[in-house]
Amino acid sequence: MFKQGLNVQAAVRRIGVLRRGIVTDARAMVYSSYGEPGDKLRAISYQLPDPKDDQVVLRLLAAPINPSDVNQVQGVYPARPPFTNELDPETPSAVGGNEGVFEVVEVGKNVTSCKVGDWTLPAVGNFGTWRSHVLTEAKSVNALPNRNITPIQAATVSVNPATAHQMLREFADMRPGDFFIQNGANSGVGRAAIQLGRLWGFRSINVVRNRPDIDALKSELTGLGADYIVTEEEIGSKSFRPTIKEWTKDSQVKLALNGIGGKSCTSITRQLSPGGHLVTYGAMSKQPISLPTGLFIFSDIHAHGYWLSGWAKKNPDAKFKVVTELLDLMSAGKVKDTPVTPHTWSQSQSLEEFGQSFLTAMDANMNGKGKQLMLFK
Amino acid sequence: MFKQGLNVQAAVRRIGVLRRGIVTDARAMVYSSYGEPGDKLRAISYQLPDPKDDQVVLRLLAAPINPSDVNQVQGVYPARPPFTNELDPETPSAVGGNEGVFEVVEVGKNVTSCKVGDWTLPAVGNFGTWRSHVLTEAKSVNALPNRNITPIQAATVSVNPATAHQMLREFADMRPGDFFIQNGANSGVGRAAIQLGRLWGFRSINVVRNRPDIDALKSELTGLGADYIVTEEEIGSKSFRPTIKEWTKDSQVKLALNGIGGKSCTSITRQLSPGGHLVTYGAMSKQPISLPTGLFIFSDIHAHGYWLSGWAKKNPDAKFKVVTELLDLMSAGKVKDTPVTPHTWSQSQSLEEFGQSFLTAMDANMNGKGKQLMLFK
Repeated sequence: MFKQGLNVQAAVRRIGVLRRGIVTDARAMVYSSYGEPGDKLRAISYQLPDPKDDQVVLRLLAAPINPSDVNQVQGVYPARPPFTNELDPETPSAVGGNEGVFEVVEVGKNVTSCKVGDWTLPAVGNFGTWRSHVLTEAKSVNALPNRNITPIQAATVSVNPATAHQMLREFADMRPGDFFIQNGANSGVGRAAIQLGRLWGFRSINVVRNRPDIDALKSELTGLGADYIVTEEEIGSKSFRPTIKEWTKDSQVKLALNGIGGKSCTSITRQLSPGGHLVTYGAMSKQPISLPTGLFIFSDIHAHGYWLSGWAKKNPDAKFKVVTELLDLMSAGKVKDTPVTPHTWSQSQSLEEFGQSFLTAMDANMNGKGKQLMLFK
Repeated sequence: MFKQGLNVQAAVRRIGVLRRGIVTDARAMVYSSYGEPGDKLRAISYQLPDPKDDQVVLRLLAAPINPSDVNQVQGVYPARPPFTNELDPETPSAVGGNEGVFEVVEVGKNVTSCKVGDWTLPAVGNFGTWRSHVLTEAKSVNALPNRNITPIQAATVSVNPATAHQMLREFADMRPGDFFIQNGANSGVGRAAIQLGRLWGFRSINVVRNRPDIDALKSELTGLGADYIVTEEEIGSKSFRPTIKEWTKDSQVKLALNGIGGKSCTSITRQLSPGGHLVTYGAMSKQPISLPTGLFIFSDIHAHGYWLSGWAKKNPDAKFKVVTELLDLMSAGKVKDTPVTPHTWSQSQSLEEFGQSFLTAMDANMNGKGKQLMLFK
């Protein structure tokens, strides 16, 4: 049962609920129908049996709340986990969340891909990361080779930094000195794009919403490697175009990264050089992409979307390779963490407290308070 | 002066204004500032001297009015001819029109690329085709190898059929059996796309505006090889989607051709299979391209524009190869003429009559009466 020298008492002390090989009183945030997360997500308690030969038992270290997780609960995301009776025998349900890092606490006898104590990331979609413990096939997770990282780094590397990495690499023939422009530049994707772009020699024009503390934000993004930071008002104004022209006069703006949509998307697309590529990965404004025909016909702009999950499903090995590359950069201090607000889950919490802690985080997420993350201690 | 056995009397009789090597009383529709074509275009008369060593004198056979010609006069087209004193010494002006077929009536002594009697097409942009005679460098025109064609075919092959040819060939990996969908299917581009697609084994869904004589139009387009013809109302309706799904269930809709913009563009883009390509070549509705973000991210749609003139400028030889291929298909009866309304220019007209004939054609063009074309007799 307890393999590879893991002391029973230590295991019990660490995970708190492991008794005679059975994880008791594990917890998860599940939903059984689609709607607003605050209404639909509920905390449940469940037991997990011993892992079978090819299975592992995992314990959560950290899991964020991403916009796509919210969309999934709302039923407006194209990839959705099925509702099953696996955790709640009475009501078919799905566990929320898709990103997170888990520690291996037990392994089946045939498992060689990871060992107790390893940190792992989901290797498949719709994993359900908002839970304290998981019993799953060992092949459903990838063990991390690099442990000189924090749980928060490991928990947030798979979605935003990987999306930034792929968008900078896959759409335009970006060479050192070339420009990219992006909106939502202070988002997780935006911050990763600034830092990766800088590492690869790309220059960036970064669009953010105006705010009282804009100077602090500008200074922060400049610290990450942003070349220019402008507000939505500036980039949307015709009178600002000569400034952009001056900045980019010896180069090309080959790529525009759009996580907002609507007018913001139109504004950044107008700055592209002929033959440039617009890549959309989000729609925070909930507005469609609206572009003058002339940008396509006469400026030869090409518009694409990027869906990391769709790509990862077809290219799981390539995805993990990108993730390990990113973790190495984080470990070396070359890519900094995205700011998150941590919320604590602990085994000393009652089920109600466990649920309330998550719903507090979700409430902050829904009210635009930045990225929220659950830490399990 | 009169070379290669061309009889002086015959030349005089045919072109009417050739006197002692000088073309007198040639005519052109020119503009000297940007605005509405009816206000800005005026008829002028001019003389042309003998061609120099590398020059040719051409006589118009036929020239259409295209939407891009109108946009050029309006000043809203990115490629514009300069205003010069070449034809009107008093007021700098440009000759309108970009497409047409001309007969060679005189050649300079060094010219080998064409001979008197050849039919030629402009080999360069901003040629200025709305004129009875042109003195130009021989390299500015391409002589047509195939003469088993009509002046109308030769005058209308370079823009619309060539655009359809390139869009079907250059953006998606179209294989026999694959579908494309297009709006404005009864336009010049649309009719060419139907016929070329059919020749290459592609199937088509063709969107047209509803009209009292819709059945006649459907029957006409079916005769050209259209597989399915639907109205804008039908394609814009959710309830019609199962019909499209049924038609395309064993195939993929890889390409959408958009000459309209606005809602019509959104409707056809929604029918694309994952990974499909939207190619925009026009904006008859004057509405921008507006697409839900999800089409890009989750359906992996790619949006492009196609500007034939831009491509032709970089690839003049490839452009002429496409044109000769198309003329061979027309000559063989495999691609039918776009319907045009011809207007006559003749040397017996006064300058005022010459101008009035053109402005009547332009008026019909501006009022949506289909493609208008000047025939010079």
